[in-house]
Amino acid sequence: MNNSKLRAAVVGSTGYGGVELIRLLQSHPHVTVTSVISSSSAGSPIAEGFPHLREIRTDLLDGIDVELVRSKADVVFLATPHGVSMKLAPDFLAAGMKVIDLSGDFRLKSGDVYREWYKHEPAAQAEVDRAVYGLSEVYGAQVYGADFISNPGCFSTAALLGLYPAVKAGWINPDSIIIDAKSGVSGAGRGLNLSAHFSEINENFKAYKLNKHQHTPEIEQVLSEAAGRPVITTFTTHLVPMTRGIMCTIYAAQNENRDTAQFVDLYRRFYEGRRFVRVHPAGHWPATKQVYGSNYCDIGFSTDDRTGRITIISVIDNLVKGAAGQAIQNLNLLMNWDETLGLQFTPVYP
Amino acid sequence: MNNSKLRAAVVGSTGYGGVELIRLLQSHPHVTVTSVISSSSAGSPIAEGFPHLREIRTDLLDGIDVELVRSKADVVFLATPHGVSMKLAPDFLAAGMKVIDLSGDFRLKSGDVYREWYKHEPAAQAEVDRAVYGLSEVYGAQVYGADFISNPGCFSTAALLGLYPAVKAGWINPDSIIIDAKSGVSGAGRGLNLSAHFSEINENFKAYKLNKHQHTPEIEQVLSEAAGRPVITTFTTHLVPMTRGIMCTIYAAQNENRDTAQFVDLYRRFYEGRRFVRVHPAGHWPATKQVYGSNYCDIGFSTDDRTGRITIISVIDNLVKGAAGQAIQNLNLLMNWDETLGLQFTPVYP
Amino acid sequence: MNNSKLRAAVVGSTGYGGVELIRLLQSHPHVTVTSVISSSSAGSPIAEGFPHLREIRTDLLDGIDVELVRSKADVVFLATPHGVSMKLAPDFLAAGMKVIDLSGDFRLKSGDVYREWYKHEPAAQAEVDRAVYGLSEVYGAQVYGADFISNPGCFSTAALLGLYPAVKAGWINPDSIIIDAKSGVSGAGRGLNLSAHFSEINENFKAYKLNKHQHTPEIEQVLSEAAGRPVITTFTTHLVPMTRGIMCTIYAAQNENRDTAQFVDLYRRFYEGRRFVRVHPAGHWPATKQVYGSNYCDIGFSTDDRTGRITIISVIDNLVKGAAGQAIQNLNLLMNWDETLGLQFTPVYP
Amino acid sequence: MNNSKLRAAVVGSTGYGGVELIRLLQSHPHVTVTSVISSSSAGSPIAEGFPHLREIRTDLLDGIDVELVRSKADVVFLATPHGVSMKLAPDFLAAGMKVIDLSGDFRLKSGDVYREWYKHEPAAQAEVDRAVYGLSEVYGAQVYGADFISNPGCFSTAALLGLYPAVKAGWINPDSIIIDAKSGVSGAGRGLNLSAHFSEINENFKAYKLNKHQHTPEIEQVLSEAAGRPVITTFTTHLVPMTRGIMCTIYAAQNENRDTAQFVDLYRRFYEGRRFVRVHPAGHWPATKQVYGSNYCDIGFSTDDRTGRITIISVIDNLVKGAAGQAIQNLNLLMNWDETLGLQFTPVYP
Repeated sequence: MNNSKLRAAVVGSTGYGGVELIRLLQSHPHVTVTSVISSSSAGSPIAEGFPHLREIRTDLLDGIDVELVRSKADVVFLATPHGVSMKLAPDFLAAGMKVIDLSGDFRLKSGDVYREWYKHEPAAQAEVDRAVYGLSEVYGAQVYGADFISNPGCFSTAALLGLYPAVKAGWINPDSIIIDAKSGVSGAGRGLNLSAHFSEINENFKAYKLNKHQHTPEIEQVLSEAAGRPVITTFTTHLVPMTRGIMCTIYAAQNENRDTAQFVDLYRRFYEGRRFVRVHPAGHWPATKQVYGSNYCDIGFSTDDRTGRITIISVIDNLVKGAAGQAIQNLNLLMNWDETLGLQFTPVYP
Repeated sequence: MNNSKLRAAVVGSTGYGGVELIRLLQSHPHVTVTSVISSSSAGSPIAEGFPHLREIRTDLLDGIDVELVRSKADVVFLATPHGVSMKLAPDFLAAGMKVIDLSGDFRLKSGDVYREWYKHEPAAQAEVDRAVYGLSEVYGAQVYGADFISNPGCFSTAALLGLYPAVKAGWINPDSIIIDAKSGVSGAGRGLNLSAHFSEINENFKAYKLNKHQHTPEIEQVLSEAAGRPVITTFTTHLVPMTRGIMCTIYAAQNENRDTAQFVDLYRRFYEGRRFVRVHPAGHWPATKQVYGSNYCDIGFSTDDRTGRITIISVIDNLVKGAAGQAIQNLNLLMNWDETLGLQFTPVYP
Repeated sequence: MNNSKLRAAVVGSTGYGGVELIRLLQSHPHVTVTSVISSSSAGSPIAEGFPHLREIRTDLLDGIDVELVRSKADVVFLATPHGVSMKLAPDFLAAGMKVIDLSGDFRLKSGDVYREWYKHEPAAQAEVDRAVYGLSEVYGAQVYGADFISNPGCFSTAALLGLYPAVKAGWINPDSIIIDAKSGVSGAGRGLNLSAHFSEINENFKAYKLNKHQHTPEIEQVLSEAAGRPVITTFTTHLVPMTRGIMCTIYAAQNENRDTAQFVDLYRRFYEGRRFVRVHPAGHWPATKQVYGSNYCDIGFSTDDRTGRITIISVIDNLVKGAAGQAIQNLNLLMNWDETLGLQFTPVYP
Repeated sequence: MNNSKLRAAVVGSTGYGGVELIRLLQSHPHVTVTSVISSSSAGSPIAEGFPHLREIRTDLLDGIDVELVRSKADVVFLATPHGVSMKLAPDFLAAGMKVIDLSGDFRLKSGDVYREWYKHEPAAQAEVDRAVYGLSEVYGAQVYGADFISNPGCFSTAALLGLYPAVKAGWINPDSIIIDAKSGVSGAGRGLNLSAHFSEINENFKAYKLNKHQHTPEIEQVLSEAAGRPVITTFTTHLVPMTRGIMCTIYAAQNENRDTAQFVDLYRRFYEGRRFVRVHPAGHWPATKQVYGSNYCDIGFSTDDRTGRITIISVIDNLVKGAAGQAIQNLNLLMNWDETLGLQFTPVYP
């Protein structure tokens, strides 16, 4: 019965992150979405702009009204841009709701760093401090019982799940890390932009925001925690002519020469019992399509005796493990449910 | 518990139809796949060729061995090419199994017609007569309780769901029907072929098998039943540079001038209570992506006073409603379960 | 020497049609582009928005200034939207320039028909009457010596080159014609629109403007001329997830049963000596990629004894033969040059 | 007149490299292709397998017959796989022809290195020594007057044009170089392979041959020459779901901190007068589409004060500058013609 289910509201339901939350939550056994919210399209049916939801969601979009949302829901997902989440989260928290924010507003613990990379004033430090950074497989223990989750960035998720165990174990030199990231175009959202115009992107491959991407400090913050000292990295993002999928190709110098099998073993032990990280055996590297539409992060390795470097390949679906899926995984952890609830999708292949 | 579930075997598990059956059946509440079968790769793990299944299916592929399959399963899906299914189905039926065949071998009631279009000797007439043509929304009553289902072709499904109500109602002239069909490339299967080679297909749009496609007589057989007299049609297939999705754009002369709203009403009444057909209101036509990864067939209309013709747009995911999904829907009907079991996916969008 | 070359100006140089004119004219032996014009970006380098032109075109965009353009150029190409061309053409004509307009403003001889399909007031009848409809292979004789050309629409070009010989010969019933057209997304232009947003179009196939597309009356006007009586048609447009290319799949009832070889022969005779129409032998149908980046229109046929219908497949590159290329071909004809000058590109394959 | 033109033969005319040579040579003012050669399809029209060439090339494919080729042509392009070129080149050279080989057989000066990376016995050292490595902008002086050119690999061309000036100038540490390369699928050729099967590649991004790609030693050989000491690098290749285009994203530690503008200046001086390398100003990075169908290599930079590293972006069309285009550029240099002859294509955009 719906009455016994946790009631969820999704703010930003007309963006790709919001609509993916709705897709996934539709089949969650313990959650029901009771309010889909969009400031720009309030009052119109959500299926109007998203005909794939026809006859699945027949409700109208709500406006942003904290009291209304509080009356309808227990937990609110903020699938809103940075700068917007920081305005909304405090009120929902004050109303006693659990809040899971998908923006970058509460990820960086330092306001100065936020200001530098986002070119925007940071959120109040009190809320920043209160937010738990929800990289599920790394910080799951902190997520349990929290009421305010800051969901990681899409690139950060792929990069960090690929790097954390090796940095934590001291097997690679943190100063040598270079992350070459590639993303499908849905990561750029539904807002109109020449950079997401079909004829400009199709049959094209491009780099963007070199040395300026706002996920850089988020990655460095976690790696610094893992390394126990400040870490800076080179992080580059590219746009791939496809809709979904992120690959991070990560390069680092090893601290002593180990082979691929040892890394496989290290990672399998680190992620033991965590269903959504799949570590590939030596000689196999994941491709983005093998996690399409699913919450998996697949990881593979190649060590090179000639250079002493290791190359780590990490892939996710940017809208699932990189956004909506991990947000739900965090809800599951927070509620002390099995973390896979509602997320046991087999990837869509081909 | 698995013990209480229906046990299913999938023959042809290394093709796209077979692997889609596995994806969908993984989340079916009443079915468990106990044997994945491939004559060419028996003995190797299914996840080796399909890494998206890693840690989801850890079993090895079985060979084709009727006794083995009988010992492991209650129902067998034949995701095998035409010419192969006709060799396998009789033995599985004789062993007392339920058989759902996805090939074209048992769809055409006339052996002569089969021979003409498939350029191959037909199956034995006894088995052809025994097979129920599983166009779920049209012949669901016959499927109920049957033990041998011939699952419709992908193009046939989209074309027939788009045409059946209008032909049955006598609203269009059957002799005037022209079906212009477009399909994603996964419909061509996983076998290597220059026609499915990436660089030949990407940024390309092509027509093929003009006036020769083997789904033509299947469509005509059903339309003839609906019209109560022999119907022949013009049917053209095209390849779209995308992986999944079929659209049929269907043209017909109306018998008397009606408007789009009347067709919407006719179709909604015809498909009332059937969850997987979504009839669009006037002014809206479906696109293939809005059914991606799901079992929906979405239909829209445009009548034209100038010409007296109606244009009908019908879309499906060729691997789901056009193959694996409808096969499972037929299993549900056959077992007298809710036809949506295991198929309640929200389409993957974008 | 440039001094002896014909000087050309391109208005609308920041759209896809304009930039394609520039690409093609760069290698025209008798023409030099002396002014690239954009009302919205005047004063900035054209290569800023189009980096593929870096070091090829280093000039700044001019604003729209008839006297300036007249001082710099002899011929002006209007790659401007409908509604804009009708404002610009009269002044350029009055200034004594040759004008080649790529919009729909001067294609329809009847103002009433224009008003109905374009939902816009028509151009002055005097200029409409003066404009020669530049379907090069059909009306080339009229183009010769003209000073004002209305370049055909992209869909119209593909449809009409595929239909004209058969209608003119009386081999098909004009009332039975159905044109199912498919286009790459560049046809929608560079203006931002959700319908051209990458994640909405990629892996998607959609129909649009059913029974309402503004190229319909243009096609009918020419077919009526060919048939010697009014013709109306059914014309449907679809968007293909690719950048360039149009295919028209055309259906018609034959007036008496002929075979494909007879149609091949009819068309080869009709287009004899015209280098840009390539008629395929029986059993071969063209795909869009085989004309990519070139000015070819490739045509193939399939007759069907069962239905008495013929299917005609016609393909072009929408930006070349469907726009910029045919405009240059018309310039060549108008100047009494070899019609292939500057257009002898081999298609880019793959 | 053709009589006065240089006569060229293309071996391997049914591969993508060969057919691209034909496309480009069709418009070369001083060259005529007199023989298109394919061992597998000899005797059939080349346009049969490549309908884009219909009415452009009406000749039949020749078999591989040195005397025949010698009687018809002055220069031969070998667009053949490694292992095959080493068998053919000696005979054509012995017959007094100029030979331009596009395979990897004559690129590596050390037979041992060839054996290690190609897993194949090397060509005879005499011919290896005789071959000039045709990286046009770097070794153009050696190409002039040579009769045997080994054309660089596609990845090598993009990587080396992006790296050579900085290594030569001693501005970066050669031991720190990491090359993250991405290629369109046409680089994999026309041979059927699951890795180039449309449904496997579309909407997918994958890495391959980590630390094993055979272009690695070729890149290292040239960088070692530039650095004046042995250099080893990390080189990774990825497959992008598009047909044409290569991007190399290159990372290196600077030897002292310089800014992007200094690198722009260095590269502009190095490539001064060379039309096919376009160096982007600070803040602009090239995308692959802006060189589509053309012989350009576009390069951009981003230095990072935080890490002391520089990121270099280099893009080419893999079939033009990465294969057929550079081969023709080398022919031009070898003949002491303007290096741009027949290659002055404006990129096809969009």
